[in-house]
Amino acid sequence: MSTNRLIYLPLGGAGEIGMNTYVYGYGPADKERLIVVDLGVTFPDMDSSPGVDLIMADIAWLEARRDRIDGIFITHGHEDHIGALGHLWPKLKRPVFARKFTGLLGKLKMDEYGLPADALTIVAARPHVVEAGPFKVQFVPISHSIPECSMLIIDTPAGRIVHTGDFKLDATPVVGEGWDEAAMRAIAAEMPVKVLACDSTNVFSTHAGRSESTLRDPIRDLVKGRRGMVVATTFASNIARLKTLADAGIAADRSVCLLGRAMKKMVTAGTEAGILPDFPRTISPEEALEVPRGNLMLIVTGSQGERRAASAQLARGKYLGFELKENDMFLFSSKTIPGNERDVLKIMNALSEMGVDVQDDAGGLYHVSGHANRPDLETVHQILKPAILIPMHGEHRHLREHARLGKAAGIAAEIVVNGMMMDLSGNRPQVAEYIETGRTYLDGTVLIGAMDGVIRDRIRMALNGHVMVTVIMDEDDAAMGDAWVEVMGLPEQGKSGAALADTLERELTAFLNTAGAKVLRDDDKLDEALRRVVRQITVEEIGKKVEVTVVVSRLSEG
Amino acid sequence: MSTNRLIYLPLGGAGEIGMNTYVYGYGPADKERLIVVDLGVTFPDMDSSPGVDLIMADIAWLEARRDRIDGIFITHGHEDHIGALGHLWPKLKRPVFARKFTGLLGKLKMDEYGLPADALTIVAARPHVVEAGPFKVQFVPISHSIPECSMLIIDTPAGRIVHTGDFKLDATPVVGEGWDEAAMRAIAAEMPVKVLACDSTNVFSTHAGRSESTLRDPIRDLVKGRRGMVVATTFASNIARLKTLADAGIAADRSVCLLGRAMKKMVTAGTEAGILPDFPRTISPEEALEVPRGNLMLIVTGSQGERRAASAQLARGKYLGFELKENDMFLFSSKTIPGNERDVLKIMNALSEMGVDVQDDAGGLYHVSGHANRPDLETVHQILKPAILIPMHGEHRHLREHARLGKAAGIAAEIVVNGMMMDLSGNRPQVAEYIETGRTYLDGTVLIGAMDGVIRDRIRMALNGHVMVTVIMDEDDAAMGDAWVEVMGLPEQGKSGAALADTLERELTAFLNTAGAKVLRDDDKLDEALRRVVRQITVEEIGKKVEVTVVVSRLSEG
Repeated sequence: MSTNRLIYLPLGGAGEIGMNTYVYGYGPADKERLIVVDLGVTFPDMDSSPGVDLIMADIAWLEARRDRIDGIFITHGHEDHIGALGHLWPKLKRPVFARKFTGLLGKLKMDEYGLPADALTIVAARPHVVEAGPFKVQFVPISHSIPECSMLIIDTPAGRIVHTGDFKLDATPVVGEGWDEAAMRAIAAEMPVKVLACDSTNVFSTHAGRSESTLRDPIRDLVKGRRGMVVATTFASNIARLKTLADAGIAADRSVCLLGRAMKKMVTAGTEAGILPDFPRTISPEEALEVPRGNLMLIVTGSQGERRAASAQLARGKYLGFELKENDMFLFSSKTIPGNERDVLKIMNALSEMGVDVQDDAGGLYHVSGHANRPDLETVHQILKPAILIPMHGEHRHLREHARLGKAAGIAAEIVVNGMMMDLSGNRPQVAEYIETGRTYLDGTVLIGAMDGVIRDRIRMALNGHVMVTVIMDEDDAAMGDAWVEVMGLPEQGKSGAALADTLERELTAFLNTAGAKVLRDDDKLDEALRRVVRQITVEEIGKKVEVTVVVSRLSEG
Repeated sequence: MSTNRLIYLPLGGAGEIGMNTYVYGYGPADKERLIVVDLGVTFPDMDSSPGVDLIMADIAWLEARRDRIDGIFITHGHEDHIGALGHLWPKLKRPVFARKFTGLLGKLKMDEYGLPADALTIVAARPHVVEAGPFKVQFVPISHSIPECSMLIIDTPAGRIVHTGDFKLDATPVVGEGWDEAAMRAIAAEMPVKVLACDSTNVFSTHAGRSESTLRDPIRDLVKGRRGMVVATTFASNIARLKTLADAGIAADRSVCLLGRAMKKMVTAGTEAGILPDFPRTISPEEALEVPRGNLMLIVTGSQGERRAASAQLARGKYLGFELKENDMFLFSSKTIPGNERDVLKIMNALSEMGVDVQDDAGGLYHVSGHANRPDLETVHQILKPAILIPMHGEHRHLREHARLGKAAGIAAEIVVNGMMMDLSGNRPQVAEYIETGRTYLDGTVLIGAMDGVIRDRIRMALNGHVMVTVIMDEDDAAMGDAWVEVMGLPEQGKSGAALADTLERELTAFLNTAGAKVLRDDDKLDEALRRVVRQITVEEIGKKVEVTVVVSRLSEG
């Protein structure tokens, strides 16, 4: 028996949707050669990560083993798969591989952060093979909601792995390569699939997935029936959708204008990659302003209610000279990601106030998902016949359901979450080790750990308000003058009717004037005592336990 | 022509879902006698109201006219209709009217805040009439997702108003009075309906609403098929659902135990009101701990993911001695209210990690809505044939769609949002005046205005972090010692690698040592200058514009 082993370690994306970061390894234990699949981000929210700009996997484990990494492979250009490249690559500095469209997006990211874009190599699809240490990797074209998505075939001395990336079974995806069942069968026929690491996002959707092309007629009919301006929003990276929307506009004698930085970036990259030969002609915003509204269609960013994107700007009023009004229509050709509901509804209501007819996908006519539904997953299981199924891309409930599905079909399936290093050498996956994992936050320009306490403090200030106490102690450890209190994020007046800051200053000063020398002399004791006074008074006055910062200045130290 | 007018003024609930607070008035302009319908709350969220406990309408307009108020009428016991009673009644101190079950809940609220429970009068349903100034009010039983909901008939010298409250057309609502079309027709036959103020919540649901009783068989079948413990959650106030769930448990030979304070409160009030003659026997949590898990069913609070409710507690681990495990089932017999998705999913995933099978209502089998859907609304329009339709209970998009529906049926319909005082005297509603409205926050024990700046400051601290600067100036307006900096909610280190607080202290001290006397002497100028230094350094070091509090202590003042 070989002493080499095959390992799988998700650092992000397993037990959550987003932040995809997976590691495969082959070799002697703790000396495996490694490859990384995807370096994605997830997005912050006010509840758990206020003020944070981006969230990515904590890759400390990888960083400590960077000399063992033979390559970083990016399956496709969605932010949850490529978004951390510019932030985490400097910690790894290893070669990156992607196909052309994805690669162009990746190079933009490298450029943006002043990193060497040539660290990223653009490679061809299967049958082209990228050799990375003991791994032979092929990019297999697969349909998704962004062009040029890839499933990876990762051949190792221990057998063949298929890492699906995001995918759906769409034979007519409007733009890019469609689902090719024969090609998929050939993969399994060529060599038995030992491990299938498989997207689980839509495992709870019980009907077969629908093709992107099914949207063409409903969207065309919808746009044709309108007289005012038509605005449509979707993910900029869904270039097929952009094309479907734009085609519908052209068919209704409308000029089409793309609004939003991401739109232009995606269409430019698509054109450069040669995957957009027949995208309709679009006009610039300046030209669009000259077009009668009944002959204009805007395709805009911001389907998730992002505050600074074009949709939100248009909902707030005039944007780049455009102003929506009665009888215009705004189409959300999109699904609202859980957590974004309030922001999206806010835009819908603001548009409603302008008299705009808002059309969402409630009827299921104007949007299709980019992920394989349950029957589609079953199809893939049947075609690839893996010995081992590892569900990925999903919250725990998705992974669990997907594993259940695999087991029902007789496949050894295991729920593997972030940090579980699995040994895949045998016939059943075994836990090799638990790795400490977590999240890294991009906060402004700094990377901080999710557990550093920074965000915890922000949340506390947001929930409880902040009281700042300043006292000056003289050389004899007596208070000079009164305590000084500033409050932030707290009601001005308490129950007593007096100003909260005044009440606090009075009580703190009274305390200082009666406290014993033992307390007054000792910074820690004094700090603690002053905090206690503040908390007691705020509970009485306003019913809240506030955050307190105490500054004791001792003149003797000056 | 009379100089009296009939007015309608929503202060909450029109342009939003929740916080229902409506005013009707009749009499000479600006001297109308008034009644209030409902005093509801809405719930805070971290995005827009961190740390807030409850949100209710700003009733300053009403408070200034309290001597003109002849009654406060509560349609039903949901928090968005009755929740502000204990907080806002002291500002009005006028008689409150409700039917028995609702009234008992209202009295509990009055008691809780030390208010006179006898200010609330329990009244009978139609044909009983409550006379309140020029208004003759009748409570008409109507089905909803809480027992004993009422539609109000408000007869005025200017004609009949029907204020629907929340409602659905459910002839078989399991508990309480069902939809009675004949009774509804009698209302219109008795006297023409001038104004219909109508629930709009479900105007976008295009199919006819389903009866509560349709859930009986699916829930019974679901529970019967289980071997482990069964836990179900729903709104505690949905007593019909509690009964359906409990009946399903009993039918599967399970003892039923209710967990959560709200459950007990609702069932007690229901029993006291005499509307629960056949609710199955339940056992206490202590008794339940002795029952084998295959013979136990828990019905628990927390369907919206509320952090302190029983569902969340069970998802976190042991709760009151109960611990869920493999093969148990957890049923969400509920719909997730927009904005609560993340909290609910967190619970579902935690349960999944425990091996619990989570069943939600994805299939539409285990929950029905309490609101009239579009076809049901059309039915009501047709039966009552109002001259004027005023959509209420809805975001702007709901009101707009509902008005569109009314207009399509030939009814004069108007979109009226909070603060729009409408004159309903003529055949079409006319705007009489725009009233300044807003939100009042219960924050701890204090009521604050939404626009007071308190919450804005909390949000800023959460997004940007907080830097506190202390400097001590001597009698000659020179800095004594160095500037002192405390940071909260910010990364410890900046780009330079040094501690952020140290960098700030060094730069601030350098500034103090070189600044001119004009700045050092003037508190405002000094404050502003120090802030500028802090902001500049934090942008350089961590890429963030932080919140800054500056405390300048002048010894000369001591």
